[in-house]
Amino acid sequence: MSLKDNKSTPNWKLKLHEVIYEADTPAGKFFDLALLVIIIISVALVMLESVPEYFELYYWEFYIAEWVITIIFTIEYILRIISIRRPKAYIFSFYGIVDLLSTLPSYIGFFFGGANLLFAIRALRLLRIFRILKISRYIGESNKLTEALRNSRAKIIVFLFAVLIVCIIAGTLMHLIEGETGGFTNIPLSIYWCIVTLTTVGFGDIAPVTPLGRFIASVIMITGYGIIAVPTGIVTSEYNKADSSKDSIKNTQVCPVCNEHDHLNKAEFCHNCGNRLNA
Amino acid sequence: MSLKDNKSTPNWKLKLHEVIYEADTPAGKFFDLALLVIIIISVALVMLESVPEYFELYYWEFYIAEWVITIIFTIEYILRIISIRRPKAYIFSFYGIVDLLSTLPSYIGFFFGGANLLFAIRALRLLRIFRILKISRYIGESNKLTEALRNSRAKIIVFLFAVLIVCIIAGTLMHLIEGETGGFTNIPLSIYWCIVTLTTVGFGDIAPVTPLGRFIASVIMITGYGIIAVPTGIVTSEYNKADSSKDSIKNTQVCPVCNEHDHLNKAEFCHNCGNRLNA
Amino acid sequence: MSLKDNKSTPNWKLKLHEVIYEADTPAGKFFDLALLVIIIISVALVMLESVPEYFELYYWEFYIAEWVITIIFTIEYILRIISIRRPKAYIFSFYGIVDLLSTLPSYIGFFFGGANLLFAIRALRLLRIFRILKISRYIGESNKLTEALRNSRAKIIVFLFAVLIVCIIAGTLMHLIEGETGGFTNIPLSIYWCIVTLTTVGFGDIAPVTPLGRFIASVIMITGYGIIAVPTGIVTSEYNKADSSKDSIKNTQVCPVCNEHDHLNKAEFCHNCGNRLNA
Amino acid sequence: MSLKDNKSTPNWKLKLHEVIYEADTPAGKFFDLALLVIIIISVALVMLESVPEYFELYYWEFYIAEWVITIIFTIEYILRIISIRRPKAYIFSFYGIVDLLSTLPSYIGFFFGGANLLFAIRALRLLRIFRILKISRYIGESNKLTEALRNSRAKIIVFLFAVLIVCIIAGTLMHLIEGETGGFTNIPLSIYWCIVTLTTVGFGDIAPVTPLGRFIASVIMITGYGIIAVPTGIVTSEYNKADSSKDSIKNTQVCPVCNEHDHLNKAEFCHNCGNRLNA
Repeated sequence: MSLKDNKSTPNWKLKLHEVIYEADTPAGKFFDLALLVIIIISVALVMLESVPEYFELYYWEFYIAEWVITIIFTIEYILRIISIRRPKAYIFSFYGIVDLLSTLPSYIGFFFGGANLLFAIRALRLLRIFRILKISRYIGESNKLTEALRNSRAKIIVFLFAVLIVCIIAGTLMHLIEGETGGFTNIPLSIYWCIVTLTTVGFGDIAPVTPLGRFIASVIMITGYGIIAVPTGIVTSEYNKADSSKDSIKNTQVCPVCNEHDHLNKAEFCHNCGNRLNA
Repeated sequence: MSLKDNKSTPNWKLKLHEVIYEADTPAGKFFDLALLVIIIISVALVMLESVPEYFELYYWEFYIAEWVITIIFTIEYILRIISIRRPKAYIFSFYGIVDLLSTLPSYIGFFFGGANLLFAIRALRLLRIFRILKISRYIGESNKLTEALRNSRAKIIVFLFAVLIVCIIAGTLMHLIEGETGGFTNIPLSIYWCIVTLTTVGFGDIAPVTPLGRFIASVIMITGYGIIAVPTGIVTSEYNKADSSKDSIKNTQVCPVCNEHDHLNKAEFCHNCGNRLNA
Repeated sequence: MSLKDNKSTPNWKLKLHEVIYEADTPAGKFFDLALLVIIIISVALVMLESVPEYFELYYWEFYIAEWVITIIFTIEYILRIISIRRPKAYIFSFYGIVDLLSTLPSYIGFFFGGANLLFAIRALRLLRIFRILKISRYIGESNKLTEALRNSRAKIIVFLFAVLIVCIIAGTLMHLIEGETGGFTNIPLSIYWCIVTLTTVGFGDIAPVTPLGRFIASVIMITGYGIIAVPTGIVTSEYNKADSSKDSIKNTQVCPVCNEHDHLNKAEFCHNCGNRLNA
Repeated sequence: MSLKDNKSTPNWKLKLHEVIYEADTPAGKFFDLALLVIIIISVALVMLESVPEYFELYYWEFYIAEWVITIIFTIEYILRIISIRRPKAYIFSFYGIVDLLSTLPSYIGFFFGGANLLFAIRALRLLRIFRILKISRYIGESNKLTEALRNSRAKIIVFLFAVLIVCIIAGTLMHLIEGETGGFTNIPLSIYWCIVTLTTVGFGDIAPVTPLGRFIASVIMITGYGIIAVPTGIVTSEYNKADSSKDSIKNTQVCPVCNEHDHLNKAEFCHNCGNRLNA
């Protein structure tokens, strides 16, 4: 409701902004809930529409529902632009683009055809859920998790890069050993198989059949089993650290002289200026 | 045996209650053991009955065994109601309903048919095992585990929700890329495939066949490999915390002379000043 | 060489014992190495013999090699009995039985036939490797690991028991939903499928085909993905604890008065008797 | 640029060395970037060449590109030998051999044929990437990871050795139980299947079909599920230790007055008595 202070904005715009962008008032809560239901319905429709039997049976129902939802989303998009003070900031924001992509495909499909390719874009409507959920309740709880993941990102990228190089070399080897027999017809395919195997997914559409190929595959699998521990170890450790650093911030005093924080729990004197701390 | 104080309850009811609900006396222990054996036999019968060859061969044996067990369970159910002071509390409790569902399907099947659909309910008899095992011995040991799981529940739900959204978007993408060729005939099926892949199960009944589809699949798999670390990290960390907080509760002695804490559980003297601790 | 003190044992017996049971002398080391090679050869032969092509081609070579190895093992077994002071203790020990089972199948197969069933027993020869390796070098390093596993055993058993019950209930459900179509012909088979799925193995010989079955399967898979964290969390935590407790033992003093150990690193006085510790 | 001090080396050699071996100067950076691009192109070509359709279609393009790259790599190899003061040290170093193997196969293939077998060796060109990346930026971050992996190496080898022995015994058992029916035609193949199952890969090309075989398979899978925790626990724990030991090395200040340690890195005064620390 920070916009209320601004006297130049008309009152109905402020009210609209409150309803659309916030969830403090009953109207705002109802708006969010209604939007949540429409998004879920629209994504469910996109899914069901892709099943040929349903599509043939309920062609017109899908068609009408699609247009109703598109029009609702279009109205919502226009209202969002109107009610905000700086529309450009919204339009080019992440959610602004997602909102646009939630309505545009239907219009493009109507005027130019090619509905099939636009399916994927319509599924992006799902991303809108994140805004509505305003998952602040959980975010607070998963804050440390995010910090842990951010800290371990660089290490996990190095790790995945190493995994990829192992896959390329092992894939080339498997192509040479197995050749056509097991379905390892070319190197990219063999690399794909290596990734499938090393990640312990194991579809089985391609599988080694020669004894040597199976031996190499065993080595790859046991390696994969051994290195599955690495990302887990990293995340666990970083999560532990994020956890304990969070705790220490809560427990610490701030030096009244030099404003230093980060004191140990048992500290009686400031480690920065030597002043006694008021515990 | 807390009921023994109550003089208004007849003696035989108290005795029955002791035998059925408790396991302190030899009779109570025997009752529990007998029930355990009958439950395991009954669940084993439900399983074997579902194998067509066995069902045809031993039709009458299954039929008789089923009725013997049903009658035993019915008698037990009636005895439980009789022997308890507040039958309603039992009848509508979790185990009361499980007990009822252990006997009812056979009667319904006898009078109305439809035995096949009642299989699942009969398998619920298995849940009765938990009561008998009174797994207090292990529960004590897995207490910290339960605490760790309760603490990490919210975070794991957020995580699984994020995994689901990744699956929906990736599934839609795979349906567009692969189409009919690899078996990705519709979006719900593609999402199912994504879940199968991301969880590293990998049945292989559906598998990408186009180069681009295989590339996307590789990205999904490596992502899955990377994020398998997250729930593990959460549970491990929470388990560690639950563990150390448990320990710290025990160790709350503070030396009355030098105020030192961090004493071992068995400490009788302060390790800092040598003064006797008031345990 | 503790046997050398004993004057009643003839000298050649002591020498033989030293060579066979110990690895301090060059002769003892050579004996162990030779035995290691023979065991590996014998296990490799058992494996190769099972390949029909090799078996037909090299029937006589296998036959002769098998008998040479059996005779060597028989001689070794007799020497082990002769050279030890208390033969009974050896014969009924774990390794004594393994040694006997390494020779007996060949004789039984020769006199009574049935060689196929004796394969498994001959593969037990592999267990003999453990004795020879005397993996003391590594054991020292994996001591904490063993402790961690022992501590987490009870919890992991409870966990696996819970997993099994989930599998039985989910298996029954899948049998009812899928029936014959997906290959879920009976409940034990469906339970087997559930175990395959929950452990993320996913062979794909049985896979759900109905939409509802696939939905339930997705729930099972995501559950499996979530609970794979639990044993990992337990082992990691216990391993950490075993680790830190090991460290504290190294760093601690023993009280000169009451012989108490387990002192904290910073302890200046014994927590048991209050005596000053000589740091 | 340490070579610059040496007056006996001609100036152009020093300059060349700077460009080729270092990345401090703009020329050195450009050289590294150009080489990186060529290596990636060359590896991509090796991959694409293995796809029969592309190979037939673009035979001459591949042929020419291969020779251009080979000549570039040959020139680079010669320049590396010329510009370094001790060529032998380079030639027999790891990267020296990789560099040689990046060029040799093309020449051998030209003079003696057998290009197919030389594919694998050409894929080794990928290893050259590591040198160029000079992944110092990430190495710094994954230093603790390397330490953790080195510390846990022995334990993980013992663990994998135990897994292998379990696989051999379980594989023999499965061969005896399943025989030909499920595809367990010989023991090595059954062991291969056990590794596939225990690592939770599960291709499904071989799968048990008898009830007993499926029961044993279930036991193997649940075992695999339980022991997947072990390497993870080891790595996580060692990573934690490496992490904290890194920190503790930095924090070795001890207060000269009260002997308190546990100071923060930035501490200038003792948090226990307020005395200035001698950093």
